[in-house]
Amino acid sequence: MNKNQNKLKIGLLGAGTVGSGVVKALQNNDFVEIKKIGVKDLNKKRDFFTNLNSNNPALTGNLSEIVSDPEIGIVVEVLGGLNPAKELVTLAIKNKKHIVTANKDLIATYGPELFDLAKENNVQIQFEASVCGGIPIINTLKQTLSANNFKKITGIFNGTTNYILTEMLNKNLSFEVCLKEAQELGYAEPDPANDISGRDSAYKIAILASIAFRERIKIDTVYTEGIQKITLEDILLAEELGYRLKLIGLAKKESDGKIDIRVHPAFIKKTNTLSSVFGANNGVLVEGDLVGELTLIGKGAGSMPTASSVAGDINLLVAQISSSQKPNPQFVCQHTDFAKIRPVSETTNCYFLRIRTEDKAGVVGQIGTMFGKHDVSINTLTQRGTNQDNTASITLLTHLVKEERLQRALAEIKNTNVVKQVENVIRVLD
Amino acid sequence: MNKNQNKLKIGLLGAGTVGSGVVKALQNNDFVEIKKIGVKDLNKKRDFFTNLNSNNPALTGNLSEIVSDPEIGIVVEVLGGLNPAKELVTLAIKNKKHIVTANKDLIATYGPELFDLAKENNVQIQFEASVCGGIPIINTLKQTLSANNFKKITGIFNGTTNYILTEMLNKNLSFEVCLKEAQELGYAEPDPANDISGRDSAYKIAILASIAFRERIKIDTVYTEGIQKITLEDILLAEELGYRLKLIGLAKKESDGKIDIRVHPAFIKKTNTLSSVFGANNGVLVEGDLVGELTLIGKGAGSMPTASSVAGDINLLVAQISSSQKPNPQFVCQHTDFAKIRPVSETTNCYFLRIRTEDKAGVVGQIGTMFGKHDVSINTLTQRGTNQDNTASITLLTHLVKEERLQRALAEIKNTNVVKQVENVIRVLD
Repeated sequence: MNKNQNKLKIGLLGAGTVGSGVVKALQNNDFVEIKKIGVKDLNKKRDFFTNLNSNNPALTGNLSEIVSDPEIGIVVEVLGGLNPAKELVTLAIKNKKHIVTANKDLIATYGPELFDLAKENNVQIQFEASVCGGIPIINTLKQTLSANNFKKITGIFNGTTNYILTEMLNKNLSFEVCLKEAQELGYAEPDPANDISGRDSAYKIAILASIAFRERIKIDTVYTEGIQKITLEDILLAEELGYRLKLIGLAKKESDGKIDIRVHPAFIKKTNTLSSVFGANNGVLVEGDLVGELTLIGKGAGSMPTASSVAGDINLLVAQISSSQKPNPQFVCQHTDFAKIRPVSETTNCYFLRIRTEDKAGVVGQIGTMFGKHDVSINTLTQRGTNQDNTASITLLTHLVKEERLQRALAEIKNTNVVKQVENVIRVLD
Repeated sequence: MNKNQNKLKIGLLGAGTVGSGVVKALQNNDFVEIKKIGVKDLNKKRDFFTNLNSNNPALTGNLSEIVSDPEIGIVVEVLGGLNPAKELVTLAIKNKKHIVTANKDLIATYGPELFDLAKENNVQIQFEASVCGGIPIINTLKQTLSANNFKKITGIFNGTTNYILTEMLNKNLSFEVCLKEAQELGYAEPDPANDISGRDSAYKIAILASIAFRERIKIDTVYTEGIQKITLEDILLAEELGYRLKLIGLAKKESDGKIDIRVHPAFIKKTNTLSSVFGANNGVLVEGDLVGELTLIGKGAGSMPTASSVAGDINLLVAQISSSQKPNPQFVCQHTDFAKIRPVSETTNCYFLRIRTEDKAGVVGQIGTMFGKHDVSINTLTQRGTNQDNTASITLLTHLVKEERLQRALAEIKNTNVVKQVENVIRVLD
C-alpha cells in the first residue's frame, strides 16, 4: 500500500533556491506530499530529486495545471516577483486552494485584494516566509502577541545590506568592495538594486506594520532610502559617537492615529539589541504595550531558513484543516481600512550631518549660528581636521527637530560660501 | 443589553502579580470576559478593579467553585507552585475546561499526567507564559518551527540571576551586594533560593526540551548548579579571556538519541547572541536543522509581559474554539516516551579553572604536569600574582575533556601539597 495515498497533496510553484529547500523540508513529512512542481525550464538538472525517499513529484512546465488540479489542497508559491505569481495565486484561491507563499512583493503589493478573495472563498493565505526568512515574526504577531497594542516595530530586514555594512565596519573596506564580495559569495544578486535601494526592506516593514497596526499599507507610501551614499567614514564616525550604522525599517503608530513608516540608514545606539545583528542576519524589535520590547534575530533569507517558515505554515494549515472546517480567524485578515501615513517631512528625529566647509577661522561658529537661526538645536559639533583641498570636515549631531525644518536649514546652508558640500545626512534613532 | 453576554467566560485562579496583569490585559477583549477570580484573601485591596470599564468579575475564596462552574470554558491558572494548582487544574480538565497556565513548576513536574488527562477529556492546555514570560518561544516551537529537527536549545532563563550577574559586571560589585539590590528592586524574591540555585531555570529548559525533542523529561534528571559560588573575579576573568559569564540552561539532542540537559554558570563567547542579554531580560537561542540559529530576547517575567503570553494563549484558544470542535493537534502533546538523559559526568566540555597554590618556583609546571597525567589538555595556564597569604592564583582554560576525567584529575590535584584550593570550576560553551 502506498503510504502517501492519505496525505494532503501540495502543488509547488517554483523550484529555485526556496523551492528546492521546501522539497527537502517536506520529504519526511507525515501529513503532506508534493504532487506537482511547476517550473520554467523542464530540462534543468535539479539536485533535490537525488535523495528523495518517496514518490517523486511530477515536474510540469504548465503552472496553471497546478492551481486547477482538484487533488491539490494547498498551493505553495515560491516563484517570487509579481508575474505570473499574482495571476496563479488568484486562480488557486478561486479554485478553493489554501495558499502558502514566501513572496513579499506579492503580499506587500496585492495583499489587500488577495486577502479579500481568500475570505470570499473560505481559504487561508499563510505568508510567514515573506518577511525575514526563518524568523517567526508574522505568526507571532498574529497569535502569541495578539493581546498587545503594538507601538513600534524596528528591524534589520535585508541580509545583503547588513552583510555589506558589517564587512565595511569589520574590515575597514569601501561600499563598492564589500558589495562585490557579497555578490561573489552569493549574498547579493547580480542586480542588487532592490536590496541596496531599501526596496526589499520596504516590502517587509509594510507587511509587518499592516499586521501589527491592523491597517492596510500602500507600498508606495513607505519612504525609502538605501545605503548607496553610505561611506566607510559614516560607519566609523557612528562607532566613535557611540552608535552603529544600520539600514533599518521602522513603523510607529502615533497618538493621532497616523503611521510613521520608513526605510533608511540610521545611527542606532549600541544598547539597542539590533546593533548586534551582524552579517547576513536579520533582526526585528517589536514594542507592545504588554510584552515590552521583544527582539528576534536569525537568518532572514536562504534556502533552508525560508523553507523552515514555508513548511511551518504548511504544518499549521494541515493542523487546522484536520481539526476544523473554517479558517482560523487569527489567520484571516480582518482589517480593510488603509492607514493614514505621516510623511517623513513631518517626522521628528535627531540627525547626524557631515559637512565640508572652507577651512578658515570662525567656520564652526558660523555653521552653528546658521542652524540656530532655523531653530535647529545642535547637540555636538566637531571639526575633524583639514582635507587636501583646503576644506574642513565638520560633523554635527542635532537634537530632535522636525525633518522639514532641518531640510529648510540645509537648503539655505548649502547655498552659503562657507559650505562646500553637505556630504551626508543620517537619521539617529532614539 | 449587556455586551458581555456572548463572551466566552473565563475563571481566573490567582490575582497576584501575573493575575492582576491578566485582568488588565483582558479588560478590552471582545471575545472573553473574566467571570470569577479565585483568591486566598478576600479582604486584600486590589488595584486592578479601579480602572475596569465593564462588569467587575466576582471574587471568591472558594477556588474549586471556579473549576466546576458550568458557564466557565477556560480556566486560567496563575497561582504558581504545585499546590493547590495541580488539584484545581486536574479538576478543571475533568470538568472539560481548557487550561491556560503560567505555572512552570506545574508543567515541568506534572506535565505528562496533565497532558494525558487533557487528551482524554478533549481539552487543551496552553502554557506559553510558563517559560520566559513574554517571549513567544513555546508556540513558536510548536507551530512556525514545527518542520525543524531541533539540535540544541540554550537560554538565559532567569531574570533575577541575569540581573545580578549584569550588575556585578557593570558596577564591579560582589554577589551579595547585587543580590540585596535585586531584592530591594523587587527583581528577587525575599527567598531567592529557586532563582539562585538554578532550579527556576531547570523547570524552563525541561519544558522547552520536552517540546523540541518530543520526549518527556523528568525534572530531577536535569543537572542543576546555581550562581552561589560565582565571584566578581570569575566575571572579570571571563571578560578578560573574551567570554561572558552567564547562568545558562541548555538541552542538546545527541547522535545516540540521549539528551544532554543542564543548568549551570558558563563562559559564553561574546559573539554568541546570548552574551548581549543584559539585566533582567531572558534570551533563548534555538538551533534547528532548517532555520539555523534563531534568538529571541525579551522580558522573561513581570506582570504585563507574562500577561501578554497568557492573554495570547486565551486568544489562540478562542480562535480555535470558534472555528472547530476538536483541539488543534499542534497543541496536543503527542509524545509519551521519557527521554534518555546523558549524565553530566559523561558530557564533554572545555573548563575554566581557578586554583590557589603555594607561591613557589615550578608550581605552574607541576600543575600542568598533573593535568597532563590525567589526559586533561590545557589551552592556557596563567599565574596571576601572589596573594597576601603567600599563595598564588592560577587560572586555566582546558581543551575539550570529559567531565568525569576532569573531576578525577581535580580530586587528585586537590590532595597535593602544592594546591591549596580549587576555587572554582566553570564550564565553557562552544
